[in-house]
Amino acid sequence: MSSGAAATNGGAFRFAVNVTPKPGILDPQGRAVEASLGHLDVHGVTDVRVGRRVELTVTAGSEAEARATVDRLASELLANPLIEAYAVELLGAVAQLEAAR
Amino acid sequence: MSSGAAATNGGAFRFAVNVTPKPGILDPQGRAVEASLGHLDVHGVTDVRVGRRVELTVTAGSEAEARATVDRLASELLANPLIEAYAVELLGAVAQLEAAR
Repeated sequence: MSSGAAATNGGAFRFAVNVTPKPGILDPQGRAVEASLGHLDVHGVTDVRVGRRVELTVTAGSEAEARATVDRLASELLANPLIEAYAVELLGAVAQLEAAR
Repeated sequence: MSSGAAATNGGAFRFAVNVTPKPGILDPQGRAVEASLGHLDVHGVTDVRVGRRVELTVTAGSEAEARATVDRLASELLANPLIEAYAVELLGAVAQLEAAR
């Protein structure tokens, strides 16, 4: 229940990296989900795209430094920039996330 | 550039379903990412969890109806409730998302 001081003074930050197939890139998992919809009697669902979501904790001297680490990881390891786009999402400072549980 | 009327009066809504392994469940992809960090000379990254992110468009009479469809799909098709947790995120009304591009 502490204030947001940790968010600027360093510490551990939890991020999510959302990796999705780029528009126009074939997405066989998305097609498989769409093919299953009829069996479930679900209607009105279109444009299904299946990607990955990677959640990770970064300990760094500042939030900006932590974000730079996540950006590097995302572009070099988690996503294939030829066929995938990624977005980085800050979930919060770890101390605050744990206090909120 | 229209107002948010579509958000309550029905239409097409874009959602994301974030599926993550439950705490305590083995996550071999997360371990693989952690094992790669040393090769990339990345430090301070821990608790890597790899899940899926499914984005989809639902056409329905209201936002609540669309969300109910997504919840059903998530629990019956996209996530395995024994080992995975999911969270539904509304990305927006499709008309607004396209106007913002």
